[in-house]
Amino acid sequence: MSRTRISNSRDALIQSRGVAAEELRRHNLGTVVERLHLTGPTSRSDLVAGTGLNRSTIGDLIAELTDLGLVEESPGRATTGPGRPSPVVRTRPPGAVVLAIELSVDSVAVATVGLGGHIYNQLRVARPRGHFSPEETVQDVAKLAEPLLAALPTTHVLAGVGVAVVGVVRRSDGFVHLAPNLGWRDVPLGAMVGDGLRLTDRVLVANEADLGALAEHRRGAGTGVNHLIYISGEAGIGAGLIVDGKPMLGSAGYAGEAGHTVINPEGHRCRCGAVGCWEAEAGEAALARHAGIVASGTGLDIIDTVVARAKAGNGRTLDALAEIGRWLGIGIGNLINVFNPELVVLGGSYQVLFPYLESAVVEGTRLQALDAPGQLAKITSSDLGPNAPLIGAAELALSGVIADPAGTAGHSVREGHAVDDRAGG
Amino acid sequence: MSRTRISNSRDALIQSRGVAAEELRRHNLGTVVERLHLTGPTSRSDLVAGTGLNRSTIGDLIAELTDLGLVEESPGRATTGPGRPSPVVRTRPPGAVVLAIELSVDSVAVATVGLGGHIYNQLRVARPRGHFSPEETVQDVAKLAEPLLAALPTTHVLAGVGVAVVGVVRRSDGFVHLAPNLGWRDVPLGAMVGDGLRLTDRVLVANEADLGALAEHRRGAGTGVNHLIYISGEAGIGAGLIVDGKPMLGSAGYAGEAGHTVINPEGHRCRCGAVGCWEAEAGEAALARHAGIVASGTGLDIIDTVVARAKAGNGRTLDALAEIGRWLGIGIGNLINVFNPELVVLGGSYQVLFPYLESAVVEGTRLQALDAPGQLAKITSSDLGPNAPLIGAAELALSGVIADPAGTAGHSVREGHAVDDRAGG
Repeated sequence: MSRTRISNSRDALIQSRGVAAEELRRHNLGTVVERLHLTGPTSRSDLVAGTGLNRSTIGDLIAELTDLGLVEESPGRATTGPGRPSPVVRTRPPGAVVLAIELSVDSVAVATVGLGGHIYNQLRVARPRGHFSPEETVQDVAKLAEPLLAALPTTHVLAGVGVAVVGVVRRSDGFVHLAPNLGWRDVPLGAMVGDGLRLTDRVLVANEADLGALAEHRRGAGTGVNHLIYISGEAGIGAGLIVDGKPMLGSAGYAGEAGHTVINPEGHRCRCGAVGCWEAEAGEAALARHAGIVASGTGLDIIDTVVARAKAGNGRTLDALAEIGRWLGIGIGNLINVFNPELVVLGGSYQVLFPYLESAVVEGTRLQALDAPGQLAKITSSDLGPNAPLIGAAELALSGVIADPAGTAGHSVREGHAVDDRAGG
Repeated sequence: MSRTRISNSRDALIQSRGVAAEELRRHNLGTVVERLHLTGPTSRSDLVAGTGLNRSTIGDLIAELTDLGLVEESPGRATTGPGRPSPVVRTRPPGAVVLAIELSVDSVAVATVGLGGHIYNQLRVARPRGHFSPEETVQDVAKLAEPLLAALPTTHVLAGVGVAVVGVVRRSDGFVHLAPNLGWRDVPLGAMVGDGLRLTDRVLVANEADLGALAEHRRGAGTGVNHLIYISGEAGIGAGLIVDGKPMLGSAGYAGEAGHTVINPEGHRCRCGAVGCWEAEAGEAALARHAGIVASGTGLDIIDTVVARAKAGNGRTLDALAEIGRWLGIGIGNLINVFNPELVVLGGSYQVLFPYLESAVVEGTRLQALDAPGQLAKITSSDLGPNAPLIGAAELALSGVIADPAGTAGHSVREGHAVDDRAGG
């Protein structure tokens, strides 16, 4: 027995329960769907090699998934090797379509996304800050979603709804305890979205940064990276964590509120009530303060102004970016020491500002990160840009299909969704 | 499909690989061993109920584990219900014995521990600070371990060695990058312990706080708790994390260095080189400074002095404890916001000081933790006390047996260990 073999590589499989045959089959169905969903069309041979399952098991699983309408197969191309070419399997996007919703501080967005990550349609609408109740917001979202859902053929299967929101979310039922930058407290958002869209079930809500992390991990800068921190800047700072290849949610889904870790007790008061939180020192308000910009309308205006002035070489703006970047880096150093990630991805407004922040961020990080974890952690900007949380919301909703492919079948768009009913009522 | 069902409860099983039959069997063997190891003697019926595996599978697994010498069975007691009483299965400690080693700042400890957590023998020796090279330390440990290993009958199977050390450890090979409070840097400790004990294989090394967390999770204050933070106070502050029921190690095993997160940039310089780290504000040196105690010899003296003076109602000491406790609590609030744990366990010197620190810790935590995660997180002191990391080191070594029960067989103490050779050479 070698040292590495007895390390914790099998921990993920070591549960307190055994695995019975039916559960094994569901797991294996999910494994095949997940693989195709994430890596695209794959030959049967590559599925055999990649999953470790034998050829006949793979054949059975593909047959079941084909019956479920989730995958389809086409003859493989002739290759130079001997024998028949291996058929190519791919996901069938209409077999599981989800509605993704993002509620952020400066905008609201919706998208229809099919299995495999196929985006049918998406819409984003900017909104001024702080003027919208949860009720108004859900109504707005329902109106935005209506044409997207109506555009889907009725043979498409609506498999769920995923919602990204800038707040502290209880995962079990999508209850938003606090969204300080929306001015919301104790909002049963999951139930409200279900009612507003006349879908009482299958609505999953999560924090925006958590979903940004999921999206970057599955389809962005963090593909193949098992330990990732996604830092989202909008009005505040949120963090989404991928630990051992899986989202780290905490006991109720509240994990990742790194914006509210104290980093400077002599600093500014934070919207959460504490003093010197990371977001109070490195967030948008601090940037505007240092740069001498008076907030007008949305944070997008602030970021646009900063970028324009930085491009023009404005000294005060560049100094402000250096100051913010240093604090941002110190906080990243803190997280590197705690999480030992491979990658830190800066998203939201930090993605836009990254060219101007990068050197100060690296400097701040070096001040705080210990050598060993610091040398392993690469810092980069988001690949997916402002849509990362929206894509993450789609991935969240699709994760239900992956967890139990056979449980999704039988809900056509017409059955599952009520746009048509509404038109008739 | 209900909302909760499509949440991530199956994430742990959703891997990028399928599960083939042989792997399933190894997993199920491990599931049974783990269950017996953690919960003690269990009836066959309860194993069936608890694992979700059927009666005949459980029977086969028990037969194989009995052949491997890892479990034994006895007739069950007659119950009031109908039918024959179900036989009771239990672990056989001699079937897999490990040597646990702890290298902390103020002491060195060793123990021999069998499957099921049976402690055969243990020894702890106090040491003055900062005078021991890695080579001397390994020699000392080998001498301490010799009588414990010699006391084991040769029929016992030595399954591995686990080492807890106060440093930043690469898990793959037990390389210690930095142990500032031992004065060590770049020490290949895993290899050195293997050589020193003439066991070139099966030595696993991990950070002391990580192993304290593992021990409290498996056998202490955190039994049944899936999201746990263990805070270890000795010279510095370390954190061990249990996330979703599993140790969170980070990409290379360095995770949990929360002692080196900046919490007060106007504060004191830390041994790591940065300013205002958590351990510089809430650690032992800060306590001694505030309490006006000049360090002499070991940190244990400082803690003893503080406890004696606090008991006597000494004002300056009580003020110092309040100050330290508040900083400790603020840092705990930071971690609560990031991790959303169910439980925070204070270990090491904080366990000893807990009665005097508790109210200030709770106050500091309230200052920083957001309501939602703050209300869910209970703060308590270690159940296992100073031995938590040592017990965690045994659990780490035994995790190899759980991961692959069939891979352990065939190494008797005489074969696997060299005390006898040494006596003969």
